[in-house]
Amino acid sequence: MKNLNIGMIGYGFMGKAHTNGYAQAPHFFPCEVKPVLKAVCARNAEKAQAFADTWGYESIETDWRELLKRDDIDAVDICVPNNLHKEISIAAAEAGKMILCEKPLAMNQAEGEEMCAAVEKANVRNMVWYNYRRVPAVTLAKQLIDEGRLGQIFHYRANFLQDWTINADVPQGGAATWRLDAEAAGSGVTGDLLAHCIDTALWLNGSIQDVSAVTETFVKERVHAETGKKTPVKIDDACTFHCHFKNGSLGLFESTRYARGHKALYTLEINGEHASIRWDLHDCHRLEYFDHADDSIVRGWRSIHVSDGDQPYMGNWWVPGLQIGYEHSFIHQVADFLKSVETGEDCHPNFRDALETQKVCDAVLDSAAQRCWKDV
Amino acid sequence: MKNLNIGMIGYGFMGKAHTNGYAQAPHFFPCEVKPVLKAVCARNAEKAQAFADTWGYESIETDWRELLKRDDIDAVDICVPNNLHKEISIAAAEAGKMILCEKPLAMNQAEGEEMCAAVEKANVRNMVWYNYRRVPAVTLAKQLIDEGRLGQIFHYRANFLQDWTINADVPQGGAATWRLDAEAAGSGVTGDLLAHCIDTALWLNGSIQDVSAVTETFVKERVHAETGKKTPVKIDDACTFHCHFKNGSLGLFESTRYARGHKALYTLEINGEHASIRWDLHDCHRLEYFDHADDSIVRGWRSIHVSDGDQPYMGNWWVPGLQIGYEHSFIHQVADFLKSVETGEDCHPNFRDALETQKVCDAVLDSAAQRCWKDV
Amino acid sequence: MKNLNIGMIGYGFMGKAHTNGYAQAPHFFPCEVKPVLKAVCARNAEKAQAFADTWGYESIETDWRELLKRDDIDAVDICVPNNLHKEISIAAAEAGKMILCEKPLAMNQAEGEEMCAAVEKANVRNMVWYNYRRVPAVTLAKQLIDEGRLGQIFHYRANFLQDWTINADVPQGGAATWRLDAEAAGSGVTGDLLAHCIDTALWLNGSIQDVSAVTETFVKERVHAETGKKTPVKIDDACTFHCHFKNGSLGLFESTRYARGHKALYTLEINGEHASIRWDLHDCHRLEYFDHADDSIVRGWRSIHVSDGDQPYMGNWWVPGLQIGYEHSFIHQVADFLKSVETGEDCHPNFRDALETQKVCDAVLDSAAQRCWKDV
Amino acid sequence: MKNLNIGMIGYGFMGKAHTNGYAQAPHFFPCEVKPVLKAVCARNAEKAQAFADTWGYESIETDWRELLKRDDIDAVDICVPNNLHKEISIAAAEAGKMILCEKPLAMNQAEGEEMCAAVEKANVRNMVWYNYRRVPAVTLAKQLIDEGRLGQIFHYRANFLQDWTINADVPQGGAATWRLDAEAAGSGVTGDLLAHCIDTALWLNGSIQDVSAVTETFVKERVHAETGKKTPVKIDDACTFHCHFKNGSLGLFESTRYARGHKALYTLEINGEHASIRWDLHDCHRLEYFDHADDSIVRGWRSIHVSDGDQPYMGNWWVPGLQIGYEHSFIHQVADFLKSVETGEDCHPNFRDALETQKVCDAVLDSAAQRCWKDV
Repeated sequence: MKNLNIGMIGYGFMGKAHTNGYAQAPHFFPCEVKPVLKAVCARNAEKAQAFADTWGYESIETDWRELLKRDDIDAVDICVPNNLHKEISIAAAEAGKMILCEKPLAMNQAEGEEMCAAVEKANVRNMVWYNYRRVPAVTLAKQLIDEGRLGQIFHYRANFLQDWTINADVPQGGAATWRLDAEAAGSGVTGDLLAHCIDTALWLNGSIQDVSAVTETFVKERVHAETGKKTPVKIDDACTFHCHFKNGSLGLFESTRYARGHKALYTLEINGEHASIRWDLHDCHRLEYFDHADDSIVRGWRSIHVSDGDQPYMGNWWVPGLQIGYEHSFIHQVADFLKSVETGEDCHPNFRDALETQKVCDAVLDSAAQRCWKDV
Repeated sequence: MKNLNIGMIGYGFMGKAHTNGYAQAPHFFPCEVKPVLKAVCARNAEKAQAFADTWGYESIETDWRELLKRDDIDAVDICVPNNLHKEISIAAAEAGKMILCEKPLAMNQAEGEEMCAAVEKANVRNMVWYNYRRVPAVTLAKQLIDEGRLGQIFHYRANFLQDWTINADVPQGGAATWRLDAEAAGSGVTGDLLAHCIDTALWLNGSIQDVSAVTETFVKERVHAETGKKTPVKIDDACTFHCHFKNGSLGLFESTRYARGHKALYTLEINGEHASIRWDLHDCHRLEYFDHADDSIVRGWRSIHVSDGDQPYMGNWWVPGLQIGYEHSFIHQVADFLKSVETGEDCHPNFRDALETQKVCDAVLDSAAQRCWKDV
Repeated sequence: MKNLNIGMIGYGFMGKAHTNGYAQAPHFFPCEVKPVLKAVCARNAEKAQAFADTWGYESIETDWRELLKRDDIDAVDICVPNNLHKEISIAAAEAGKMILCEKPLAMNQAEGEEMCAAVEKANVRNMVWYNYRRVPAVTLAKQLIDEGRLGQIFHYRANFLQDWTINADVPQGGAATWRLDAEAAGSGVTGDLLAHCIDTALWLNGSIQDVSAVTETFVKERVHAETGKKTPVKIDDACTFHCHFKNGSLGLFESTRYARGHKALYTLEINGEHASIRWDLHDCHRLEYFDHADDSIVRGWRSIHVSDGDQPYMGNWWVPGLQIGYEHSFIHQVADFLKSVETGEDCHPNFRDALETQKVCDAVLDSAAQRCWKDV
Repeated sequence: MKNLNIGMIGYGFMGKAHTNGYAQAPHFFPCEVKPVLKAVCARNAEKAQAFADTWGYESIETDWRELLKRDDIDAVDICVPNNLHKEISIAAAEAGKMILCEKPLAMNQAEGEEMCAAVEKANVRNMVWYNYRRVPAVTLAKQLIDEGRLGQIFHYRANFLQDWTINADVPQGGAATWRLDAEAAGSGVTGDLLAHCIDTALWLNGSIQDVSAVTETFVKERVHAETGKKTPVKIDDACTFHCHFKNGSLGLFESTRYARGHKALYTLEINGEHASIRWDLHDCHRLEYFDHADDSIVRGWRSIHVSDGDQPYMGNWWVPGLQIGYEHSFIHQVADFLKSVETGEDCHPNFRDALETQKVCDAVLDSAAQRCWKDV
């Protein structure tokens, strides 16, 4: 048994989700490598300590540079706003730490390329938290595609719909709403939500060739949480794009935070020659599957309750019929990362995989700004 | 081409549904026998004439005995309250008319036996309007069972849930609410709704051996529409029973008019060794099907959109994906009846088939009254 | 009571659907104007006669010009391929006939404008068969929007997915597959399927300002049914576009005949400030509705079974819980047309309404061809 | 902060589920009382040690009597087959330990009464693991009922359907299949599955007055895992009962392990005067709700995605739209138990609450055996 000492930077929503992954993975996924919650780092010492107490972190730091200097830290987990990913990642690589970076990788492609160069030069293990690949139903979709069950792909369709910013009184900036502040987030739904859709799409359906996008900002000004002043909103509230995949299929993507009634509805659908697949995050334990090879009189979309032992990851959980939830995707990602440390193999998506998503995001934003098609 | 002259008795909800069947069947189901709307009969001449005008009946009668005397009537369709079925049916049989009788066959088993004896003695073609057998999804269920896809049956489950009598101000008796009046209806949900469930069950799963039932009347008194007086309600508002089928399976049935939120939710489910089937009337164009023979990782309930040309009756309608509705079950029953006249074969369910349902209803009501099991 | 003599041109799928509308409307929707099936016209006399026999047309014609000459024809119904709409419509207008033209209005905007000019000059009643406006659930959606229940609209989303042309052996051209032949159809899914989505969208959400589209033809060559030769396919197999509506909302549309598992899945969703709406053709009797004004702990998408007497058109059908189907949208359109003849008001969508859809289709096809945004 | 030292007896499915509850509750539900995994007890020392290593138990025991002697154990958690509940519980009570006992409480009512007497005499805190009360959607149902939203209740309906014993080669007895062995389990689906349905029903809808039941054993003999011999199966494979609740509503319950296609489908539905509620375990994060007070044209069943901060327990988890799963019900029960230790209030269901469920189970089994109604 070998310890892997974790240094967590940030304690927000994602800090909690990742930490839960470290806490739970060893309970369900046997591995020779065991994560140890060594330190959590945040500017506010009191909040950092409270988080450490809740989760059992052994120590705290208030400056991430100090964390990187510590010899007892093997891996750093970056859970801070997007505008800090690059600096911390490059420093961590130079300090020889493994890096688990929250998505999106960076503010843009240029930053992402620097980051890739840094981790590859330092030869440190790196991973990006595109967690949805490890929802068992999505992993099963990948398996079905790899088995050739769908045949030639004609259409890939994904959207990520939310409704939490419809109220014009929601501020931008600050700890709770930095995702509305272009300075901290880089972009709006494109980097936050579409990035997830794109990562999954590249994994399931291969590279994207070119894109044509449109973005919209419905609420033009919001109070900034730090200044208290009404300032222009510079992020995209909504973004839609269509694209060509290199395999000849058409893609259609949409994201918005103005879809009343949808809390976090990430859906995807893939139409192939022989079969089709559908999934949505609001019922993330199910996969819809249509197989044209079924007898014609009993053909129909199957609703697969992904909870059996022969389905991805599920043999390590409960018994058939008992569903898992959102947080388990992070537990699976930790389990796979630990296993990769044990075996020495790469754990995907790594920084370079995530750079591909970044390239598509940049092309999407450029396309929308210039009202024309853009190659990726 | 041969005409079949129809004499319709009654012009209410069922008179309209059956008449629509006669009007539409020849448009979609080619047959050498063609129904002619010869006469409609009702006590109120004005209403009868209005109905005749709308639907194209050639004439009216105000006394069903007169209708039966007419030589130009080949078949009578009985769409009046249950307490009149016996008298009219026996007279029609004696007059040598074919009979299409609305369900339930009779007020009770004893009446039903007299009616069977009469039609069999007279050797007249007879049929009862248990229309749900001819919803394409239900007919498909029958086909799947007959093909052996389900294997040994373990469970049969059906219910019929409504909510239209929760309001205690709904009266009993009269033209609109005779179904709440025991004098006219014989029973409440048992004869009205469970009779449908039982007919389908006997058709799909064979005979019932014994039953154990409970009934309830939630609103004890209602104003009678004809007298204006509050009188005790003698029908069953709700009825539940379990039973043994002769094939060894267990049955579970429920009906009520107090299930808030359900307008007319007839559902059935059959669990077999190899496969299971589900259907409900609120989405009557779909059949749910689970096949254990599917590969385990992609097993799931299939939602079959029954609208393809190789599915029962659907080749005569539109194109795949375009649903039909409630009324079409009657059109199919008319089409099958006309075809039976052409071929000389029986058209089921006939009076004797419907008598079996009547026997189960009687056993159910007896069981509830006596709080014990009853053999059918 | 006044007769309206119908001359039907064509006897295919739409000829049957419209004729059923004429046959059924008077049974369910009382009106002073009554359609009479006077004549059906088709080049093949034998097939025309068979159709006339089935449906009760009093006579046949084999040349539509002869039909237009007859004084006993009040209205002509055009159910022939798109490339004939213009010529027949203009001649019919000049002959003073009312016109009920199958959608899309024309091969393109230029044709449509000539047709509008002709009917307006002749001052003849005209209507186009965009039937989905009269599916009760869609009509209810219109009512909810008009009542202001949704507030400001942010997103309009629609798609129409089929899978019947995936097989490369499906031919193009000929009576059964003229929709794959650009000569007869003008375009592929854009004019056939997206035209429906666009008509509904313009009705529910107002004008479209500009569009950005992509089209694809997956099977590049198909045998032509008339020549037997393999020739290039010139229609669009799939088409996606995003757009700005004039009310500031974003639109996203997609159609394809390569979506395995979807027979005829027309779906639409509208996200407003206060509420959202969803509908799909495969369960066309339901409307999904989310109302943000509901108490937060019990907020959720409502599945409305549109079968109650106070919902559009449903008071004329059966009782709550009993669904209607696809064909009823045509019956409703006939009923509304007859009522418009009675009252003298316009019946929408008329030619000019349908021209707006044609303009969007043209902009979509231009945008796809030129890979740029196009104003409508 | 005060420690609560846990001694776990058993390490099977439930041992894992409960231990996960102890591990996770402090991460999400702040409390002054903190569980400490002090010891796990099992006859097989090697397996006990492996379990201790995985979950962090500080020590092991191989004899539960030794565990009860230890002063460093505050509470024992009983996760062994039903036939051992009584003896261990009574000894634990006498040893002054708090008791958390897996359901069902006992083999029968008589045992249950002894157990209640013991814990009440010893005045030790006691609880039974009917975990489904703490699925947030079910807890929300309780809240809605308590707020009076349903009004008078007419119907309560529940079933628990599985399909894992259809194969006649599944053995009875032994560690994995003791639930099929009447010696170890007491009964079949009645004590295993219906007990859950009954506990929830008593909580949501009050006491049951009388019952009428039927049971069935489809596979009459199975190999016993310990003896290797084919012996008669004495448990009930399936059980159905109807009943009267004391509030005047009718109940209908069913459970089976022969419902092909259902892995663990616990469903419940409650029909009230004003509103109805539905829930099922396969999508346990949703509650269906119908409110008759909604405007009639937009009335429909709402599908509530129970993941918002103002819904039970969910404020302690992630963000709206992100579902939790099966295991969380145990975490909630631990959290509530710890809070009860902190506040000194009872935590329900306690032994006496669970005895009520036991009484209903006994009446159900008696009714089935004697084919008559039984008072509870």
